[in-house]
Amino acid sequence: MSGEAGTPVAVLGLGLMGSAIAKTFLAAGYPTVVWNRTEAKADALVALGATRAPTAAAAITAAPLTVVSLLDDDAVGAALRDVGPRLHGQVLVNLTSSTPEQSRRRAEWAGRHGAEYVDGAVMAIPQGIGTPDALLLYSGSESGYRTAEPALSTLAEQGTYLGADPGRAAAFDASLVSVFWLSFFGVALGISLAEAEGITGSELVPFAPAVVSLLPDMMAQTAAQVEAGHYPGHDTSISSAYTAFSTLRDVIARHGIDTGVLDATGEVFRRALAAGHGADGLARLVPVLTGDR
Amino acid sequence: MSGEAGTPVAVLGLGLMGSAIAKTFLAAGYPTVVWNRTEAKADALVALGATRAPTAAAAITAAPLTVVSLLDDDAVGAALRDVGPRLHGQVLVNLTSSTPEQSRRRAEWAGRHGAEYVDGAVMAIPQGIGTPDALLLYSGSESGYRTAEPALSTLAEQGTYLGADPGRAAAFDASLVSVFWLSFFGVALGISLAEAEGITGSELVPFAPAVVSLLPDMMAQTAAQVEAGHYPGHDTSISSAYTAFSTLRDVIARHGIDTGVLDATGEVFRRALAAGHGADGLARLVPVLTGDR
Repeated sequence: MSGEAGTPVAVLGLGLMGSAIAKTFLAAGYPTVVWNRTEAKADALVALGATRAPTAAAAITAAPLTVVSLLDDDAVGAALRDVGPRLHGQVLVNLTSSTPEQSRRRAEWAGRHGAEYVDGAVMAIPQGIGTPDALLLYSGSESGYRTAEPALSTLAEQGTYLGADPGRAAAFDASLVSVFWLSFFGVALGISLAEAEGITGSELVPFAPAVVSLLPDMMAQTAAQVEAGHYPGHDTSISSAYTAFSTLRDVIARHGIDTGVLDATGEVFRRALAAGHGADGLARLVPVLTGDR
Repeated sequence: MSGEAGTPVAVLGLGLMGSAIAKTFLAAGYPTVVWNRTEAKADALVALGATRAPTAAAAITAAPLTVVSLLDDDAVGAALRDVGPRLHGQVLVNLTSSTPEQSRRRAEWAGRHGAEYVDGAVMAIPQGIGTPDALLLYSGSESGYRTAEPALSTLAEQGTYLGADPGRAAAFDASLVSVFWLSFFGVALGISLAEAEGITGSELVPFAPAVVSLLPDMMAQTAAQVEAGHYPGHDTSISSAYTAFSTLRDVIARHGIDTGVLDATGEVFRRALAAGHGADGLARLVPVLTGDR
């Protein structure tokens, strides 16, 4: 029952995300033990009622549930180097960004030391922690997750356990982050073009929801077509989309805006066209990217 | 008062979009005159009560308001080649996709013939026409727009007049479509990676809204920083984002998925870093793209 209020929780790593996590545990009534390599980062949390641990090992020993939020997997390795034996019987929830492979290796290591290892991916900014907007994905030890669930549920209403493969949360995370990165570049490019046309980015903002709200349906349709291996062009075909895309690329180029990302995108279109997929729908670009077909 | 129900409306071009537009006018009680180069495309609309016009000129003459939805600006030029004199005193609303320059040239041409020219951009799929999801942007003749507004409001609840520059709707459209294109490539890449990790795209879909809902805020923050010329990295810096981005790129490369678009994106990051912007926020990528700073 280590995850219930009243039971201490340890938080390792007090960057923006770790601090937001520790603050949320404190606000929910969890005795919270905090550790950070640079000690001063704990001061604000101690003022809110957290207990400062002098070492990562001391923090882990002080609570049956430890939540880790460090810079990257190397930092996790460094922080946990000598604490192996202390992990026996513990629940270790690692929210540090990592690749699926790193998460699987970390789970193996924690398992060797007798810990129940849960890997988590935080799909939120630090300010979102504890709000309905936060989405946290988990995978790894199911019993560890169930034990930690009451405490973890204070961090995000949308906490989702995805299965026993400890790399699965990181794989979902990486896939969703791919969507995010290119979307952000789309935003940057859209603002660049607007400015060149004498429109401020702020004037575009009211129309952004109408555009981004198309994406989940587009994703569902693309996913369904990829799973079926059948790519009907209901709304548009690759060849007509490429025509529209090329026109846009030329408008952007005429303003002297960098077309590198669009040119690379155009190359994927051209590969699809060269393979004879011009009449197919946009979902056909997925197997073109993966080289499957 | 040509835009009010009871007054005929002409629709030129009966592709998926033009047909959806004509159907919506008919459903709203507008006597609707339709024309398409390939006549058979009018059959379904005639069955719903539309009147078939034998030529574009005949359609225009039969109604004080003409809405054009053709493949591209060349098709508009071809369809309207000989109708110039018929345009006098007419309201011409051109919803054909075009560049800002094409829209301005088309407005000039229509103005020379005495028409009130309104250029529109349709931010919707054909199935969205007439629903609350549809967004239509207009610019050009304001009095033309006001005359046509009752009829146009049946197409989209979110109809917005953006100003007298006839290229402005197309410029908004191009900027928003830039966001859309790269976001769609993000979706395609995300599904590619998920599949490589043994996750179906459909399993990702439930989490897509959490990702895309970040974009309007991200756009507002980026726009505000670009306008202020000041790029604080509140949530993340270019250098830490580039580290996370590079890790993602390597995960994708290890699965043999095409990294061309990500590599081009990485190049923009590297240019920002080389210019000494590593500590700035992501909004700094906009002037890097435009070459302004």
